Amino acid sequence: MPELRKDIITKSWVIISTERSKRPHDFAKPPVEKVSKFCPFDPGNESTTPPEIMAFRPANTAPNTPGWWIRVVPNKFPALDPKIQPVRLGHGIYDSMSGFGAHEIVIETPDHNATLATLDYKQVQEVIWAYVERYNEIFKDPNIKYVLIFKNYGADAGASLEHSHSQIIATPILPSLVLQEMEGSKEYYGFRERCVYCDIIQEEKMENTRIIEENDDFLAFAPYASRAPFETWILPKVHQYNFGEIDELHVKNFAAILKNVLLKMKIALDDPPYNFMIHTGTPHGDGKEYYHWHLEIVPRLTKLAGFEWGSGFYINPTLPEEAAKYLRDVKI
Amino acid sequence: MPELRKDIITKSWVIISTERSKRPHDFAKPPVEKVSKFCPFDPGNESTTPPEIMAFRPANTAPNTPGWWIRVVPNKFPALDPKIQPVRLGHGIYDSMSGFGAHEIVIETPDHNATLATLDYKQVQEVIWAYVERYNEIFKDPNIKYVLIFKNYGADAGASLEHSHSQIIATPILPSLVLQEMEGSKEYYGFRERCVYCDIIQEEKMENTRIIEENDDFLAFAPYASRAPFETWILPKVHQYNFGEIDELHVKNFAAILKNVLLKMKIALDDPPYNFMIHTGTPHGDGKEYYHWHLEIVPRLTKLAGFEWGSGFYINPTLPEEAAKYLRDVKI
Repeated sequence: MPELRKDIITKSWVIISTERSKRPHDFAKPPVEKVSKFCPFDPGNESTTPPEIMAFRPANTAPNTPGWWIRVVPNKFPALDPKIQPVRLGHGIYDSMSGFGAHEIVIETPDHNATLATLDYKQVQEVIWAYVERYNEIFKDPNIKYVLIFKNYGADAGASLEHSHSQIIATPILPSLVLQEMEGSKEYYGFRERCVYCDIIQEEKMENTRIIEENDDFLAFAPYASRAPFETWILPKVHQYNFGEIDELHVKNFAAILKNVLLKMKIALDDPPYNFMIHTGTPHGDGKEYYHWHLEIVPRLTKLAGFEWGSGFYINPTLPEEAAKYLRDVKI
Repeated sequence: MPELRKDIITKSWVIISTERSKRPHDFAKPPVEKVSKFCPFDPGNESTTPPEIMAFRPANTAPNTPGWWIRVVPNKFPALDPKIQPVRLGHGIYDSMSGFGAHEIVIETPDHNATLATLDYKQVQEVIWAYVERYNEIFKDPNIKYVLIFKNYGADAGASLEHSHSQIIATPILPSLVLQEMEGSKEYYGFRERCVYCDIIQEEKMENTRIIEENDDFLAFAPYASRAPFETWILPKVHQYNFGEIDELHVKNFAAILKNVLLKMKIALDDPPYNFMIHTGTPHGDGKEYYHWHLEIVPRLTKLAGFEWGSGFYINPTLPEEAAKYLRDVKI
């Protein structure tokens, strides 16, 4: 059973995930590159994943059979599990929690070789709708405190399967980084009585040196203090706290800017590995005035080393203004 | 000139390091594996590094010539630079600082093929003495707020040169992770009137399931909330706030436990890549009662992915108790 443990000093939580358990001796040999052609996410292989939670499929097709264009399934090796009772426990001077939560996979297309950068706009919209639907459904459980939607693309970004997919992990606590963002934006609001993200949008548009892509509803830009080369944030231009409240027009424009940015990265950076994460306020949380949902993309072009682990601050060898110009100028 | 930029939301700082500048198009092609046999850290190649800051060498040898057994040189591509004036600047709504600081390399041995795991105890002590000497010297500048001593071992841990070396980066601000540890341990002290690290030592000795190695002065153990498989912390058993105040007997026992743990990892995990970092209170800072210097080793056996980037919490697939037992049982 997975277990959450709290660092008594920093108060950050760690998931000790025994479902995906690696025994000590598993590490003693370098992992063998799997050149298997079998893909559990391909149409026809539905029975090799856990039964689907949700799918976008024609009404005349049965669950767990082909025909779907989006499919959501539980992770076969879940980091957290909805069937576990949420319990907090002490362990000597330490604190732990049972591994209650959820861990789902969004299979973004039946096409084994497509990616979010190459899928058509309509299909990327369907991916976003799947996110929205699962996000709002999972949050119905009051024991869920956060729903993190993220994507690992490429082996160097932690993807273990090639077929285009994203992940959703729902946690029984607010992750420390989200808490830090909430507190920081609350403090800014207390000082200025404005949302810090709204101010960032205004600043970026005025300065106009770090913008990568823009449409009616969204702005994509390299953040001023980018932690990594080509880090890109996508923000809704009008203040919106909770990702789950996104409407149809916004889904359309969010899908468009996301696909365009990913396609530009693919062309400019030779199909780089990347992670993206949706940061959002929660349906029942505070912060409606001061927090602003957004998506952060981090291409994984440099390695995190001891300095980052030991200090929590990053060394970025590329000027955000240069990175933005380079992506902005890519023709798609 | 390097520049520090502050994330306006989380207040974390990023070093935009133009000295080690990567232009956007540098990322477009996968890096070519360099199979050069030339090593700037080998004896005889002293002139290919910046002039040495300090060396342990016989009195009859000249600086920047062979004969040394420990050599400290400025990083050829420094992330921060002592020759820059420390200045804070605003940039629109954002904050920045000039890239003042220091970035040094400790060459740990003249032997190209040796590592901290294979060097004899005496030489590892000399490495620790080099750390102590540079640490105390760099802190004489009142503009330096933190000195981070760390090591990247292996390409997957961010090392760009094979020859055994560590790094020292001195920063004009307290890194966010250090601040977080300081605040967490202060809060614990406020509640219990005891140092949290001293309590951890007592807890670990009592529970006796996560200890890896112990000697008269130091305890090495897998932390309860290990973020990564085989993460190991080494703590002085008697409360000590500032690494720079370590005495001769402690250096001897610190070198011994560090070498033993690294050798056990090398044997058990097939020479894994790892990072280590010394976390310490600072000579002029608060926290003498509640902070406790220590070293953290993180083998880099799993990849950080979107979940970690997006949430700040970690998924660890190996039970700390199993990892500790596995290392504890290695015969060296």
